[in-house]
Amino acid sequence: VVFSLLVLGSSSVLPTAKRYPSAHVLNVHERFFLIDCGEGTQHQMRKFRVPFNKITSIFISHLHGDHVFGLFGLISSLSMLGRTKSLTIYADKKLKDVLDSHFNFFDNRLTYDIIIEGLNPEKEEIIYTDKLLTVKSFPLKHRVPVWGFHFSEKKQPDKMKKEMIDFYKISIKDIQKIKEGEGFTTNEGTFIPHETLTIPSNKPRSFAYCTDTIFHPEAIPYIVDADLLYHEATFEEQHKQVAKETYHCTSKQAASMALNSNVKQLLLGHFSSRYKNMKKLLSEAREIFPETYTVEDGMLVEIKHGPSFAHTYFSEELNV
Amino acid sequence: VVFSLLVLGSSSVLPTAKRYPSAHVLNVHERFFLIDCGEGTQHQMRKFRVPFNKITSIFISHLHGDHVFGLFGLISSLSMLGRTKSLTIYADKKLKDVLDSHFNFFDNRLTYDIIIEGLNPEKEEIIYTDKLLTVKSFPLKHRVPVWGFHFSEKKQPDKMKKEMIDFYKISIKDIQKIKEGEGFTTNEGTFIPHETLTIPSNKPRSFAYCTDTIFHPEAIPYIVDADLLYHEATFEEQHKQVAKETYHCTSKQAASMALNSNVKQLLLGHFSSRYKNMKKLLSEAREIFPETYTVEDGMLVEIKHGPSFAHTYFSEELNV
Repeated sequence: VVFSLLVLGSSSVLPTAKRYPSAHVLNVHERFFLIDCGEGTQHQMRKFRVPFNKITSIFISHLHGDHVFGLFGLISSLSMLGRTKSLTIYADKKLKDVLDSHFNFFDNRLTYDIIIEGLNPEKEEIIYTDKLLTVKSFPLKHRVPVWGFHFSEKKQPDKMKKEMIDFYKISIKDIQKIKEGEGFTTNEGTFIPHETLTIPSNKPRSFAYCTDTIFHPEAIPYIVDADLLYHEATFEEQHKQVAKETYHCTSKQAASMALNSNVKQLLLGHFSSRYKNMKKLLSEAREIFPETYTVEDGMLVEIKHGPSFAHTYFSEELNV
Repeated sequence: VVFSLLVLGSSSVLPTAKRYPSAHVLNVHERFFLIDCGEGTQHQMRKFRVPFNKITSIFISHLHGDHVFGLFGLISSLSMLGRTKSLTIYADKKLKDVLDSHFNFFDNRLTYDIIIEGLNPEKEEIIYTDKLLTVKSFPLKHRVPVWGFHFSEKKQPDKMKKEMIDFYKISIKDIQKIKEGEGFTTNEGTFIPHETLTIPSNKPRSFAYCTDTIFHPEAIPYIVDADLLYHEATFEEQHKQVAKETYHCTSKQAASMALNSNVKQLLLGHFSSRYKNMKKLLSEAREIFPETYTVEDGMLVEIKHGPSFAHTYFSEELNV
C-alpha cells in the first residue's frame, strides 16, 4: 500500500523560477492530505496530477503567506468543481477569521463546508484518526505560533496463513481472535502459538513534518523513530546567525534533529532563494546525518517497508 | 521603442496545467504595467523574467479571485526584495479594505507604501498620465463592478532633419518651436514649412483591455481604433447562453467588438477550462474578424508601427 510524499513547493518565502512556496501531498493508502498551501498550490496540483476531489483535509503549519496564500484559490476552485463533502483544515484557530474576512469581500458562495480545527499551541495532541492512520500536531518555535505534524500508520492485524485454517479447521470466530493476537487451542487440547498461525503485518510507517522553526530539540520526542522526517533547512552553516534571528534552521541543525530523533531518512526543504544550488547545504547536513536528501518541486518520495526506501523524481506522465 | 504585451495567464477562473489565471505585463518604453494579478503571477514573472523592481503600477479589472489572488504574494515578495518606492494599484476602491483586512492577519511590515486609486464606475476617466503615456479606465459589465483599460502613447515631437539645422543655421530656441509643429522663416524672409524641416514622429500606438464582461457594445467608443485589443472570449458559440448567464463573452462576440471598434488586431484570452484546445473558438471569431489570435501563457506580442505587427512566443532565454 502507498505511503508517499509529493513535494509541490520547496522554496522559503521568496519563490524562484523552479521552486514554489511550501506545499506537500501525503498519500496514505489513497487518502490525500495536503500539508501547507503556498501560492500556486493548485497549479502544482494540476501539473503533478493530484486529484482535486481526493484531498480530504489540509494541515497548515503556521499563518505565514508562503504556507497559506494558495488556500484562497484552491478553496474557490474546489467549489467551482462542485465539491460537496466538507473540507477540514487543521491550523491556527485564527485562520477562521482570515477566511471569513477574505470570502466576505469576494462573491464566493462555496458548494461545501469548511471546518477549521484549531491546533493546541501548548502540547502534542492527536488531531485526526481513522482505521489506518493517526495524525498528531506538536508545537515548534517560530515568530508566530507554528506546529509540526506526525503521520503514523496504525498497526494492522496479522494475516492468517491459509494452510493453517484448512489444517486445523479454524472457525471464522477464532480467525478473528487470532488476527487480533491470540493463539489457538485444537480440539485435542494442543496450543498453537499466534506466530505459527500468522504472517506478521508490516511495521507501521511514519512521517514527521517540521517547518518553519528555529533549532528546537524540545520537539525530538514528537518525531522520534520516524521513517521519514521533513525538516526545514532554510540556510547554510555560514548563515547560522541569520537563521537564529529569523527563527529558521541551518541544514546542520536539521541533521542534528534527525540524528537525535533516530529517524531513518531526512528530507530538507524550504530553501532560501539566495542559494543557486543546494550542494553545500546538503553536504553540511550529511556530515552529521548521511541519509539526508534535498527536495525539488515535483519530487515523489515513497516510504517503503524495510530498512530503506527509494525516492523518485515525479514524472508528469505518472499519477501520484 | 518597445510597446509590448506579455501574457502571464490566459485561463478563466479554473486554471489548467498550461494556463494560469489572468495576468499581463504591458511594457511601454521600459515602463512595466501589470494588468490583473491572478494566483501565481509572481511565479510567472520569475519564469518569464519580468523584473520585479520595474513594476511601477498595477491595474485590476475587478475583484474576482482569478484576477486578484496573486496580489498578496506579490506585495509580500516586493517587500522581501526591499522595495522602497510606492506601488500604485488602480482598482475597485473596495480593494483597500481587502488588503487592509488581509495584512492585518499576517505579520507583514511592508517596506513601501501601497496607494489604491479607486476607479470611476460611472464613466471613462484618465487615471494615469506621464510624458509618454495616457491610461484611461472605462466601465464594462459583469457580476461585480469591472473596468476596461486603454493605454495610449502620446504623440511625440517630430524630429528635426540635421541637415536643415546646418543649412538654415537654426537656433536652439527655433528648433524647439519647429519640433512643436511650427515652420521657420529665414533671415531673408523665406518661410520653410514644418514638413520640410522635420521627420514626422511615429503615430502613437494604443492597447485596449476588456475582461471580464458580458457582450457590451456600449464600450466601443472607449476602444475605437486601438492597435491591439485584448478581449475575453471565455466560451465557444455553442455555449452562448452560458456566456450570457455568467456575464462572459463568446469569441464571436469579442470579434464583433473588434470589428465595430475598428481595431487592428484582436487577442482572445480568459478561456474556459472545458476546452481542450482553442481551434473552434478561434475559427468562429475569425469568421467575423480575421486578424484574431488566441493567447498562451508566455506569449509576447509586440505592437509595432505600421499596418501590421508580429506576435511572438516568449522564450525563457529572452528578457522581456
